[in-house]
Amino acid sequence: MLIHVHNRPADAAPITRADWDRACGRLEVPCELSVGTDPAAFLAVASRLEVLVASPVGLRELLPLQTPQLRLVFVTWAGLDRLAPFDWLPPGVTLLNNSGAQALKAAEYVLMGLLMIINGMPALAHAQREARWVTAVGRTLAGRRLLVVGLGAIGGATATLAQRMGLRVTGVRTTPRPHPACEAVVGLDALDAALAATDYVALALPHSASTHHLLDLRRMSLLPAHAGIVNVGRGATIDETALCDLLDAGRLGGAVLDVFETEPLPPGHRAWTTPNLVVTPHMSADDPDTVIDATVGILVDNLNARQRGAPLPNEFDVARGTRVRS
Amino acid sequence: MLIHVHNRPADAAPITRADWDRACGRLEVPCELSVGTDPAAFLAVASRLEVLVASPVGLRELLPLQTPQLRLVFVTWAGLDRLAPFDWLPPGVTLLNNSGAQALKAAEYVLMGLLMIINGMPALAHAQREARWVTAVGRTLAGRRLLVVGLGAIGGATATLAQRMGLRVTGVRTTPRPHPACEAVVGLDALDAALAATDYVALALPHSASTHHLLDLRRMSLLPAHAGIVNVGRGATIDETALCDLLDAGRLGGAVLDVFETEPLPPGHRAWTTPNLVVTPHMSADDPDTVIDATVGILVDNLNARQRGAPLPNEFDVARGTRVRS
Repeated sequence: MLIHVHNRPADAAPITRADWDRACGRLEVPCELSVGTDPAAFLAVASRLEVLVASPVGLRELLPLQTPQLRLVFVTWAGLDRLAPFDWLPPGVTLLNNSGAQALKAAEYVLMGLLMIINGMPALAHAQREARWVTAVGRTLAGRRLLVVGLGAIGGATATLAQRMGLRVTGVRTTPRPHPACEAVVGLDALDAALAATDYVALALPHSASTHHLLDLRRMSLLPAHAGIVNVGRGATIDETALCDLLDAGRLGGAVLDVFETEPLPPGHRAWTTPNLVVTPHMSADDPDTVIDATVGILVDNLNARQRGAPLPNEFDVARGTRVRS
Repeated sequence: MLIHVHNRPADAAPITRADWDRACGRLEVPCELSVGTDPAAFLAVASRLEVLVASPVGLRELLPLQTPQLRLVFVTWAGLDRLAPFDWLPPGVTLLNNSGAQALKAAEYVLMGLLMIINGMPALAHAQREARWVTAVGRTLAGRRLLVVGLGAIGGATATLAQRMGLRVTGVRTTPRPHPACEAVVGLDALDAALAATDYVALALPHSASTHHLLDLRRMSLLPAHAGIVNVGRGATIDETALCDLLDAGRLGGAVLDVFETEPLPPGHRAWTTPNLVVTPHMSADDPDTVIDATVGILVDNLNARQRGAPLPNEFDVARGTRVRS
């Protein structure tokens, strides 16, 4: 089986042959590996290529080329909204993402965000800039209620870490089956009631028509005034204008956002200066020390599953914009 | 047994009779309670007083008064360095602190600090102020090494939470007996080697002659360049000038300090503006929602222990500046 890894020329973290060699001892099917950064390298193997590994950047431009043997496209990101619509995917080819590779890092970021909100860190950072020693009050996170919206790899890891920290976790997902770290898991139809009964919300959702502005003004207004929101999924799942309005009015405790409708966040955007809003530049999920090994490991897992005729854990559902099995 | 609670007139969180009533069902000894905010109230019960409950503020001024029955002084703080030297304590009277009441809150603050350092939050806060979308890299905290210096109530809770988050924890305490959340516990004589072999340091020490500037320039220089320090004990256990020098020189990854040699931290102090240094105004430990109930609960535990003739868990060792049994 010929696997071609197409790295971007400027990729800060390309997948190298050495990365592959560290993982391929676990492979249950003989593979030949090709690695390249330009379309010529892709063209050289296109006629025999069975598995293509690539980031979403430039992928759409590669695939009109003739690839008669291609069966799998493994994308080295988790959120593939950038590739929609998926009309570029040749018929009969299965799309996979690397969901899982970022889960622990992103879950830790969510916990950091919750702790920063409950300790009032945005206001304390402001006081530090002005060299003001203020009277400040933080509270204990353990025992508070957390709603994790989206229980994929990142949401699931978030629920697990939060439970270990003593939070009481409720999950929200399309199909509300139980999760070991959640006291309850409810469907999207129960989201309104769940928002009214929580202290914190962690958003770990892909962006699709059904998640666009899922947290809008009406829904965020259901939250208690001390509530906090952390978003590590996709920016457009929150109505940013409504969120900034609520924070400006003191009707929410705080928010920590790593993702935005427009990235990079434009210099004049009000999110930069909204009180009690922490902005980070889409860095919550990737740990450069671990993401490549984790990604290659997930690829190997999926190739082994395919060899055994088992369902592919990372098969991507282009209609729902998330994994088939999440 | 007569217990008098002496609240400060301006105390934001006094212990009220209602607070006491919630806890006293667990008491194994009949008690009479008196509550007051001025010396006159104290004087009215001084001749019969057996247990005095007070914050350190103003305590020294009360005790020259005649209290022939006094056996216990329970101070509603954990760090009692403000009361040293302890020559004001009448002979035969046992001093107790409320160690334990702040442990979980402070442990959560330490975790927040570690997550902020490993995610580079000070630099990202700076970028947010300038509305700059930067290329940023965070890393995963799980799997890193944490040295908890001081394994009292706060240090112990910190070790426990950190272990639950997947950190590999080593403890440092005067008497190096094992702790369930620590892979190893070493004595102060092994501190230098432990600093060279860790990624992060959490300081949870009282201040005394033996802990003054425990982290000095030489010891902090043993840490790797990516290392981070969080201090929730007492400020003077770190040489602040040396810490700021190391951060200025980029020889440490970051620090989060909630305590300082001089509090309030003076407006012109360089800590306010040192890069990668987060300053908070001594708020890491107290949760106003829980500290009173926790404090009264600890008082009840100690009164019950005394009634049974058992060692008092919160007995304070004035020579070591910490609990006898920590």
